[in-house]
Amino acid sequence: MANYTTRLHQQIINRKTPALVGIDPRWDWLPREIQSAAETAGGCLHSRIARGYERFSCELLDIVAPHVAAVKPQVAFFEQHGIPGLQALHAVMTYARKLGLIVIADAKRGDIGTTAEAYAEGWLAGEDPDAAAWPADALTINPYLGTDSLEPFVNIAAKRGAGLYVLVRTSNKGAAEFQDRVSEGRPMYETVAQAVGRLSDGTRIDGDLYGCVGAVVGATWPQQLRQLREVMPSVPLLVPGYGTQGGTSADAAAAFHENGLGAVVNSSRGINFAWRREPYASTFGEGRWREAVAESVHEMIRDLAANTPAGMLKHGLDMNPENAGGARTGI
Amino acid sequence: MANYTTRLHQQIINRKTPALVGIDPRWDWLPREIQSAAETAGGCLHSRIARGYERFSCELLDIVAPHVAAVKPQVAFFEQHGIPGLQALHAVMTYARKLGLIVIADAKRGDIGTTAEAYAEGWLAGEDPDAAAWPADALTINPYLGTDSLEPFVNIAAKRGAGLYVLVRTSNKGAAEFQDRVSEGRPMYETVAQAVGRLSDGTRIDGDLYGCVGAVVGATWPQQLRQLREVMPSVPLLVPGYGTQGGTSADAAAAFHENGLGAVVNSSRGINFAWRREPYASTFGEGRWREAVAESVHEMIRDLAANTPAGMLKHGLDMNPENAGGARTGI
Repeated sequence: MANYTTRLHQQIINRKTPALVGIDPRWDWLPREIQSAAETAGGCLHSRIARGYERFSCELLDIVAPHVAAVKPQVAFFEQHGIPGLQALHAVMTYARKLGLIVIADAKRGDIGTTAEAYAEGWLAGEDPDAAAWPADALTINPYLGTDSLEPFVNIAAKRGAGLYVLVRTSNKGAAEFQDRVSEGRPMYETVAQAVGRLSDGTRIDGDLYGCVGAVVGATWPQQLRQLREVMPSVPLLVPGYGTQGGTSADAAAAFHENGLGAVVNSSRGINFAWRREPYASTFGEGRWREAVAESVHEMIRDLAANTPAGMLKHGLDMNPENAGGARTGI
Repeated sequence: MANYTTRLHQQIINRKTPALVGIDPRWDWLPREIQSAAETAGGCLHSRIARGYERFSCELLDIVAPHVAAVKPQVAFFEQHGIPGLQALHAVMTYARKLGLIVIADAKRGDIGTTAEAYAEGWLAGEDPDAAAWPADALTINPYLGTDSLEPFVNIAAKRGAGLYVLVRTSNKGAAEFQDRVSEGRPMYETVAQAVGRLSDGTRIDGDLYGCVGAVVGATWPQQLRQLREVMPSVPLLVPGYGTQGGTSADAAAAFHENGLGAVVNSSRGINFAWRREPYASTFGEGRWREAVAESVHEMIRDLAANTPAGMLKHGLDMNPENAGGARTGI
């Protein structure tokens, strides 16, 4: 069973970019052609919306799949619409896997004991999409309940070649309120990061440089990002907050190791609804929304390559851990 | 729109007990008659399990509905089985509402901004079961992301007569790890509790004694429970950890105000699978599992009445806030 992070990195090296595309459909913002088609097919409100979400998300996947390694469907938007919404989510995840994309389910789950185990069993399909009801390669999880609440996820992830991203320092404005509370000279997020580092180290086998337990750290907090990259050297990072939320590629740069690996940077609205903002609104407009999406992905890939160590990926990377030591010097 | 906690309390007064029954189906533990019926009907593994969960959960509801005010389906066990599992959850929630039960969806959701809003829109049906895709009266949520991540839930809950239970001090062994980190002389759970208290106060209208924002505090931590009842006087508590997890009625007593209101105490496995443990295994056994479930509910109700202020409910309560002041003296 291949380590999740090794699989992810192989894919990142193939695509030469750590760009991660969020799948965040919102009914009011969908292109009118998608709305109309969904409306015309009829059914209850949730069914019509779900149909629009599925069609839109699958078209997004077609556009981005040749260019990026991974996508991150936001479970909430689908779950909001009940069974039809979740049927759409399942179809979207299945289609993404079929296209060869790594699928990170952004569900922020968390519970204790056998309940945590149930979430892990259900979401962490890992290498084999059929190993769980939801065919995710990786899942975001919440640490508030303690390390013992994360362990059931870690055990199942390690067994199935699946990954986890534990919320450490989130991208929202109010993240500091609880996450920065200092105890014995150390902010909460650092204490959580140390626990995540330990869990991740425990999943490294056969010379893996990274474990399968990752962390979510917002690009909106470059200083904490730099610090956390040092606290958790063997932990793959998921960096939200790039683009619409205000984080830049320069802010996200600290998430990477020197060789351009170790992190994925996510953009959701900025890509999903690219044609609704400038310059794409003028250049393409709603009628050519697919081109706007494609162009916004290319722009993000260029931006990350120019302003972060991810630029190294363009030169081709040696994935043999025996030879990768040099790339990690000075981490 | 009636305040959620007022609705809950009215129901608790009618039933004369704060006992909350968790709905936690697990395939391996289901009565063989339920397993066989589910297997016989065929379909894929998830469908067969989901059918068993639905049948078992609805039978549980029939048994407990005449005796308790509320039930708490654990979403994880259903979600583990994908679409069929969630269809079963929806049917169970719908049936519980039909029986007049208050339904607390234990989903421990949490996210930021419009994503939090999507979860809230989807789960918080509140007074009108048709107001959301999932017909819950209330939802458990996770505070790690900060107060700004809770506000979208609070706004929608207040509008719909729905309730929230924010995780404050959970019942698991490892709860202390992050929740007890002391900053400026105050443990994390107390900081979260203060935020919950403020949010709940903001939802009190027209002389409500309680807001619609509650807190989860484990019976397994009686000392913290006593402290938190004081820190959050207007916050309704959901107390897990009674029974199988080791919490007793004496431990849970501190959750209540003098008049026996202000808290619900949950038991899941202890009731769902009563016939698997003594004394019910000997008295009833698997063949008479329904009687074991009924008897375990009665036993819990008697235990809470005998050893907590909930015993006051037996004498009948005056719900008029004008007259309830006395009952809250000495909180």
